[in-house]
Amino acid sequence: MNPIIDSIRAIVGPAGLVVSPQETAPYATDWRKRYRGKALAVAKPASTAEVAAVVRACAESRTGVVPQGGNTGLCGAATPDSSGSQIVLNLSRMNRVRAIDAHNNTLTAEAGCVLANLQKAAEGAGRLFPLSLAAEGSCEIGGNLSTNAGGTAVLRYGNARELVLGLEVVLPSGEIWDGLRGLRKDNTGYDLKHLFIGAEGTLGVITAAVLKLFPLPKSRATAVVAVQDPENALGLLQRTLEECGERLTAFELFSDFCLALVLKHFKDAAAPFARRFPHYVLLELSDTRPGEAVASLAEGILGAALEEKSILDAALAQSDAQAKALWKLRDFISEAQAHEGPNIKHDVSIPISRIPEFIRTTDAELGRAHPGVRMVTFGHVGDGNLHYNVSAPEGVAPGAFVARTEAINRIVHDSVARFGGSISAEHGLGQLKREEIRRYKSPLELELMRRIKRALDPHGIMNPGKVL
Amino acid sequence: MNPIIDSIRAIVGPAGLVVSPQETAPYATDWRKRYRGKALAVAKPASTAEVAAVVRACAESRTGVVPQGGNTGLCGAATPDSSGSQIVLNLSRMNRVRAIDAHNNTLTAEAGCVLANLQKAAEGAGRLFPLSLAAEGSCEIGGNLSTNAGGTAVLRYGNARELVLGLEVVLPSGEIWDGLRGLRKDNTGYDLKHLFIGAEGTLGVITAAVLKLFPLPKSRATAVVAVQDPENALGLLQRTLEECGERLTAFELFSDFCLALVLKHFKDAAAPFARRFPHYVLLELSDTRPGEAVASLAEGILGAALEEKSILDAALAQSDAQAKALWKLRDFISEAQAHEGPNIKHDVSIPISRIPEFIRTTDAELGRAHPGVRMVTFGHVGDGNLHYNVSAPEGVAPGAFVARTEAINRIVHDSVARFGGSISAEHGLGQLKREEIRRYKSPLELELMRRIKRALDPHGIMNPGKVL
Repeated sequence: MNPIIDSIRAIVGPAGLVVSPQETAPYATDWRKRYRGKALAVAKPASTAEVAAVVRACAESRTGVVPQGGNTGLCGAATPDSSGSQIVLNLSRMNRVRAIDAHNNTLTAEAGCVLANLQKAAEGAGRLFPLSLAAEGSCEIGGNLSTNAGGTAVLRYGNARELVLGLEVVLPSGEIWDGLRGLRKDNTGYDLKHLFIGAEGTLGVITAAVLKLFPLPKSRATAVVAVQDPENALGLLQRTLEECGERLTAFELFSDFCLALVLKHFKDAAAPFARRFPHYVLLELSDTRPGEAVASLAEGILGAALEEKSILDAALAQSDAQAKALWKLRDFISEAQAHEGPNIKHDVSIPISRIPEFIRTTDAELGRAHPGVRMVTFGHVGDGNLHYNVSAPEGVAPGAFVARTEAINRIVHDSVARFGGSISAEHGLGQLKREEIRRYKSPLELELMRRIKRALDPHGIMNPGKVL
Repeated sequence: MNPIIDSIRAIVGPAGLVVSPQETAPYATDWRKRYRGKALAVAKPASTAEVAAVVRACAESRTGVVPQGGNTGLCGAATPDSSGSQIVLNLSRMNRVRAIDAHNNTLTAEAGCVLANLQKAAEGAGRLFPLSLAAEGSCEIGGNLSTNAGGTAVLRYGNARELVLGLEVVLPSGEIWDGLRGLRKDNTGYDLKHLFIGAEGTLGVITAAVLKLFPLPKSRATAVVAVQDPENALGLLQRTLEECGERLTAFELFSDFCLALVLKHFKDAAAPFARRFPHYVLLELSDTRPGEAVASLAEGILGAALEEKSILDAALAQSDAQAKALWKLRDFISEAQAHEGPNIKHDVSIPISRIPEFIRTTDAELGRAHPGVRMVTFGHVGDGNLHYNVSAPEGVAPGAFVARTEAINRIVHDSVARFGGSISAEHGLGQLKREEIRRYKSPLELELMRRIKRALDPHGIMNPGKVL
């Protein structure tokens, strides 16, 4: 038996330790089953002090530590390597809401709190915690912060990073940094929390956070709008922002091929219009004012746009049920494309103004190099974030298509770089894009990241092989 | 002649170099004339390449570099020490707006752009750049970002930090980090920009930034509200947030003594009510919708609060001129207190929910230790930020009062620490609070800051003696 396992058992007790290969396997496999690692053991500490003691023991024995929350990440950041020498540090037992301060509009939560539970806790206090994403029923806030999660409310409320006031972090030395401040202003030196947010566990383990709460919206208007092309979608985005400001909560674009996939693979999904159009926008307004004002506002904007023919059609939900049905068209795209067969995914961002040109030129380049590929293009266009996924041409065997991944990534990511974009908008780097990023980030920026890594984790025990 | 001066002259030319003691003196003195340093020379580069070359020359000769913008800081961060060995690197000649992208809602500006000019440039493009503070006519954006400036629009739009998408930074080595990305989402590694923002020039020189723009508000409602105590102010804050959400743009509290000082020292200032009350709130709603809706909303909220007696009186501005007159009552406080004599200033933040108790207990403690002190308490209470200033008791000589600075700071800052607050909410540390912060920040957090400083500036040439 490895002595580190005994040390960890002494810290977390038998309830906090998983060692058998069968039992550790699920923790050592990522959500998309793309990475299958092997863990020396899975430690499940129940308190910050236990996390600190486990990390200290790992630091002393130079054992790699892989922090893990709900294990729903898409880039393999929470999966150990195959050496069997790394400890998975699963935070799920640290799932207490430590405090809610409605007057300060803050909620203090431990890392293992499931996102949906935090949304409910906030609502119970008459407040909104706006972070929302597909995995919210199982992802955990520690992971959300470590990966700076995005989701469907970024346009109005920002990324996970923007929702944090303070952090508690166990450092690679096992020391505990108590940065759990509930302050909206604090200019007393370097803002350390922003280093740990989005670092994917490579600089320390986030154990708790003070999160921002917001007033609950009391009215909502949801519409699907048909547009000829992404230019028209952007025109509508600008018009809606100028007229509605922060009422605009979501602005999602998807192509007709996305809709076709959803309608094909989800029998209960209904087309929003009697005929089909090239692209669709799902937009949502919300307001702290109750009543019909946002619905009238949406009607006014869409009516005027229809009149001047900058949009082709519009359907405004007349009930909550209709709004949910419209959201399904957007939410089901990821699953629908999986049913259709393999696709090569790209989570990219582009300056919003350049999205139409990016789509046009990249589509054309892909079409030339890989005739017949079918583009599954959708995303949070209000944030400049596209899920720009490439599906196999009809009739091409899955294996043969997947073999083109590298070539297709190169076309897409080179184009992203030319347009001043990012090759990982909201999913992170993990192990999936660790090599890829070296092509696109300047050597100087990579060197700065390495210097910070060395400064905080000189022995390199935190999540080795991820990000850098 | 020091050879570094010749090197700098060769880089920036004679127009970019100031060497005579008379001419360098204003650059070596801070805005409040509290610090009078001595500069070896003032370099005024006109481009990022020149900044880089100057910093490289300084790095090679281990010469300290003090970055400076509009020199309006309140903590002496932009003032050299008295050794006469440091170079002031003034960015004022780098004052170009490099790009405005209205569809991406971004503005790319060089560090030396005066804040008010950026506000105007944004407005010219039909957009709002919301950062706004008293010094906006002369402060420069590089300084605003290096100090993470706050101001009057933080409640709705965030601190300077929240307004930045990308940065260009000259590192202590003289290398240029091009992080000028105009993206709302980018999860490709550590978020380096947040290290440089608020670092007060100790980690590098910000030379340009991509800033966020917002829709222009088209209507506004401004009111002054009389309240019995800070508890009632907080009640009004919550009610307004719950009903108005992001429409609430400003929520400022000031005591009757603040009003008395303004009325005494500014003859054209008019009292908002026929009688006087213990405290006042200045609140402002704004909206992208034109028309009277926000005024009606404010009327409704204030009317209901009056009816239930949670506020004492309210005056809603009926014109732009009236709104400006109400803002003057708040804006003139700083100057009015200066006319009244010496005062010992504290720029603190507290969790919003604890502000009433903080004021009550700290007032009482100060009153016991220093009978007769007059509290000038005002600030951005919607952000938890108080300017909690202590004026001399009547009849106490200025010198005798100023001699109590250390004792009064101790009472106030110890109390701030007990309430989980910050001793510098928006002004930074500079040289003013560099020693003070060591009492209140954990040794571990200071050590983390030092490690980052060493990792990025191993020779310690960037703004020596500031922050750390």
